[in-house]
Amino acid sequence: MSPNKNLKIDKLPTIRRMPNYLQILRGLATGGEEYVSSSYLAERMKIDAILVRKDLELTGISGTPRVGFHVRDLIGSIEKLLGWGRTLDACLVGAGQLGAALLGHRELANHGVRIVAAFDNDPEKAGTSIHGVTVFHFDRIRELLQRLTILLAIVCVPAEVAQGVIDMLVEAGIEAVWVFTSVNITVPDHIIMQKEDLLSGLAVLSTQLTRRSPTGHS
Amino acid sequence: MSPNKNLKIDKLPTIRRMPNYLQILRGLATGGEEYVSSSYLAERMKIDAILVRKDLELTGISGTPRVGFHVRDLIGSIEKLLGWGRTLDACLVGAGQLGAALLGHRELANHGVRIVAAFDNDPEKAGTSIHGVTVFHFDRIRELLQRLTILLAIVCVPAEVAQGVIDMLVEAGIEAVWVFTSVNITVPDHIIMQKEDLLSGLAVLSTQLTRRSPTGHS
Repeated sequence: MSPNKNLKIDKLPTIRRMPNYLQILRGLATGGEEYVSSSYLAERMKIDAILVRKDLELTGISGTPRVGFHVRDLIGSIEKLLGWGRTLDACLVGAGQLGAALLGHRELANHGVRIVAAFDNDPEKAGTSIHGVTVFHFDRIRELLQRLTILLAIVCVPAEVAQGVIDMLVEAGIEAVWVFTSVNITVPDHIIMQKEDLLSGLAVLSTQLTRRSPTGHS
Repeated sequence: MSPNKNLKIDKLPTIRRMPNYLQILRGLATGGEEYVSSSYLAERMKIDAILVRKDLELTGISGTPRVGFHVRDLIGSIEKLLGWGRTLDACLVGAGQLGAALLGHRELANHGVRIVAAFDNDPEKAGTSIHGVTVFHFDRIRELLQRLTILLAIVCVPAEVAQGVIDMLVEAGIEAVWVFTSVNITVPDHIIMQKEDLLSGLAVLSTQLTRRSPTGHS
């Protein structure tokens, strides 16, 4: 993996928490607060203050003893780190129920993700429109990817075809894939991949429920 | 937070990786492999072998030098850690597009999550059935939660009502909530909460794309 592309894996939990920090900080800014302490952020985030200070190191903003972090500086720095506030053109591949839910998800649009085309292998869906986005047949992926300069593909296809679809997208020149699946997927090193795996969340939940009642859930 | 319920936050990434280890290990077991090395697992998981060995410490299974880890022991130990292989009765709250996608998600059923009822505040949906699960009106949450001994609520309601709905579920006696939202949610310490936040994944993707082309996505 090229070092300039990939974040160190130990930084990923920090990056994942950044949208939550942003949400709290924006609330504070709206309320007219100028400074915030790491202990306040720790309480709101339900994590340790030491972890908050470690997380915020990544932003490059340092707090002032007994004063805290400057709220607006911190917001600006997190937005810059995440690359938010710009527009990112994406396509959706697999326009089933989950795909349709993502097409209708306001938070994506609010954070600069503009889904400019959707693809599905069902010929009956081709030409229709979901939440204002036109659905094209899979056949047209290569052509439209190149014509529309799409960097990101959001992939919501069934597990058994996921790897094949992603191989096709890679061949068609995609730079990044956001994959909603529970199966292991491999991509060449130059492709940025983020996988959302429902089973990871279930694993955390289920482990906690098991620790609470070790004899079984039911 | 009670120490017996909450996993240490530094263990969460390990737990989140466990379903991926399981998938690889089950493949090896099916192929007749008896032992696996941490370096093989590292290559398949695309993470460092040191991290693999650290992850697997949590299972209590130790590898044998030059032989590796016993595949079936490791599978059994991970399943026990995650509490998988049992049935967990759940309800779904918010039967919109995302909710419907989760109701149809085979992986949940395959991992013991049995959704026994769905709830929605739309009176027109009450009495209908989605993927074989009956939808009830919100009014009946308290009654059915108690009658059906449901431990887990999967919450897919719009951001602006999420906290209110979760407060209602907590009051009705739910033990765990799996919340699909990007807003910050608070629950009492005795409630297990797992939040799936689309913006966390987007933050990781977007940070990587920004590092690749610091002048902007488009």
